[in-house]
Amino acid sequence: MPVLMNRPVFEQVLKENQLDGYVATTAESVTWLSGYWAMPQWIRRGPQAYAFQPLKGDAESFIVTGTGLLDHAAEQELYISAIHRYGFFSYESFEEGVGPEARLLRKMLQAPQHDGPAEALAAALKQSGMKGARVGIEVDGLAPGILERVRELVPGVELVRADGIAKKFRATKTPEEIARLRESGQIAERSIMAALDGVQEGESEADLARRFHTQTVRDGAFPVLGCIGFGERGALPNVDPSPSRKLKRGDTIRFDVGGRYRHYRADIARIAVFGEPTARAQQCHSAVQAGIERAYEVIRPGITGAMLFKEVMDAVRKSGLPHYKRNHVGHGIGLDGYEVPALTENSTDVLQPGMVMCIETPYYELGFGGFQVEDMVTVTETGVESFMTLPRDLIRCG
Amino acid sequence: MPVLMNRPVFEQVLKENQLDGYVATTAESVTWLSGYWAMPQWIRRGPQAYAFQPLKGDAESFIVTGTGLLDHAAEQELYISAIHRYGFFSYESFEEGVGPEARLLRKMLQAPQHDGPAEALAAALKQSGMKGARVGIEVDGLAPGILERVRELVPGVELVRADGIAKKFRATKTPEEIARLRESGQIAERSIMAALDGVQEGESEADLARRFHTQTVRDGAFPVLGCIGFGERGALPNVDPSPSRKLKRGDTIRFDVGGRYRHYRADIARIAVFGEPTARAQQCHSAVQAGIERAYEVIRPGITGAMLFKEVMDAVRKSGLPHYKRNHVGHGIGLDGYEVPALTENSTDVLQPGMVMCIETPYYELGFGGFQVEDMVTVTETGVESFMTLPRDLIRCG
Repeated sequence: MPVLMNRPVFEQVLKENQLDGYVATTAESVTWLSGYWAMPQWIRRGPQAYAFQPLKGDAESFIVTGTGLLDHAAEQELYISAIHRYGFFSYESFEEGVGPEARLLRKMLQAPQHDGPAEALAAALKQSGMKGARVGIEVDGLAPGILERVRELVPGVELVRADGIAKKFRATKTPEEIARLRESGQIAERSIMAALDGVQEGESEADLARRFHTQTVRDGAFPVLGCIGFGERGALPNVDPSPSRKLKRGDTIRFDVGGRYRHYRADIARIAVFGEPTARAQQCHSAVQAGIERAYEVIRPGITGAMLFKEVMDAVRKSGLPHYKRNHVGHGIGLDGYEVPALTENSTDVLQPGMVMCIETPYYELGFGGFQVEDMVTVTETGVESFMTLPRDLIRCG
Repeated sequence: MPVLMNRPVFEQVLKENQLDGYVATTAESVTWLSGYWAMPQWIRRGPQAYAFQPLKGDAESFIVTGTGLLDHAAEQELYISAIHRYGFFSYESFEEGVGPEARLLRKMLQAPQHDGPAEALAAALKQSGMKGARVGIEVDGLAPGILERVRELVPGVELVRADGIAKKFRATKTPEEIARLRESGQIAERSIMAALDGVQEGESEADLARRFHTQTVRDGAFPVLGCIGFGERGALPNVDPSPSRKLKRGDTIRFDVGGRYRHYRADIARIAVFGEPTARAQQCHSAVQAGIERAYEVIRPGITGAMLFKEVMDAVRKSGLPHYKRNHVGHGIGLDGYEVPALTENSTDVLQPGMVMCIETPYYELGFGGFQVEDMVTVTETGVESFMTLPRDLIRCG
């Protein structure tokens, strides 16, 4: 069974925070803590699904979900012991029928139906043995009023707001998470190459974006991030691919892109040039590339985000962009686009084996262009391993 | 300029709630209130961007955003009068350069840089003339601590939590919104037909999903919802297309699908059958289809969600599924997947011209299959207009 949750790290973070268990309420944390991916929770506001894991194995782990989302629980491999449902939803069932999902779903429908998510969560906490316990709860995903109602219903459980620690325990990835993130990153690479495949003068940014996202879909992922900018528009950090900006000889093409593969995000960047680069474009690219090359030399367990920031910034500045300034040279990535660690000037986050990060050195010069190399990597016991297969050099096309 | 905001409705809702202005904080409401689409706010947790509109035209409308997201403001057509930015972000700028975005961005960078979103929002409220005013604020999109900090900084502004009313004023769509929603729905239709084009025995649900999403991308939209289930798996409401379930002769194929086109969502459903339908499948489909045909007869301004619910349910029950049960027969749709009005048994929402709704009658029978017709429609002055071009009958393929 693919387990996303890193139990040793989870337990360590709970202990540091004197918590006996944790209730996840955001889509990302629920999936991580239980394996439960409740699609409606991911694609619109409102649907309430929660996951709980106790510190100790003698208490019961569970999910809370709407009756209408039980089908996901029947289809998916969950690593929790109980399912608590709320609200009415009509599944008809007349005959034994076929299919393992239907049989499992029928069984789940025999569990009691709570009125709402607060009632279900309160009952679940009681049943799991959390009376008298101190339980952390992620508030970010809760609908208004839920926290207060649960506190009323189970006054014996001390519910402590603890949003920040979910980011901490999600920072160090399991092998399953690393495999998905690697594939997600490599799908983004293939999508860049598909966007550039047969690229012609006069095509628009939107034309390339279409080829990019089509490859992402073909490889089983969902399009998410697709910044593709030509020439001077590459200097817009969040450039939205335009149908009217047409490719010209000598244009750089900045890709800052990535989809979602089995719920895990990609975020990588490469620069292509259509024809010959100018000397200045080559110089800018060499400088930002030097920053990433330096990152590969220095990343290892035990260094802080701040140390990595300094090394990377120095390398870019020494390699052709002495005035280079940045907020960060990267960030963790996982179920969400930005996770722990932060790679900023003052970051005290310590790199640990299993962390997955984007390392990046974007340079945006208004009226001229954007240059950026961004790789996805994981910290290993002894250093760093790249998820990337493409070279980091300027990509020549056309 | 494409304006998404419906000013008369906005003003009416503010007056009903005795508010002098409104601060939007979720991605959807910010886009609606200002035209500002801040991509990072849409694709990950954390980025803070806000939009404000006053009740009266003599106060100043504005957005608050991070310096790193100003490029969006330069590229997009906004209907606000001021931009307040916070935080450092490095755009280099050495020469006059080319491109209207770069010129505009340079100008925006001359505005003062506030420390953070709370400081920027407080300053903006002061500058806009909201001292002594009662201002509604959507709390759902705010990072922890922001509301408290803004209240400290501008004690003269009464900030009232008002999440629910954003849904009210977003319910009645402008012509621009209706045009986008129509196109979004029709892209979903074309994507269904692309998924079925050349469909063959032995193909998987995932194969059809790939063709579906590829067409969505080709038509300039982003994949979001893609429930495609064969035969008995069609009875899983949120079915996740499987690579292992292969299409067999006689299988029904349930599509409950839709992407996002220019930020506006689609959500439609059709049933296909690969080969000949069984009599029972035909009966189930006819019943759910009859519910939707009835909806087209009764939708008009002034009726409540509850009235529509009753008419549709009665029609399905009379047409072959006497035991039919449902929570709702549809919902509003717009920038989010579920909006006002609710079409439930007890809904007091009153249909108004310009509302856009999904009307749907899904029937899930475990071990047998799923049947569903779901159309996107808009309420007109005299009745209803469909966005759909496909017939609602069972689609024969193979």
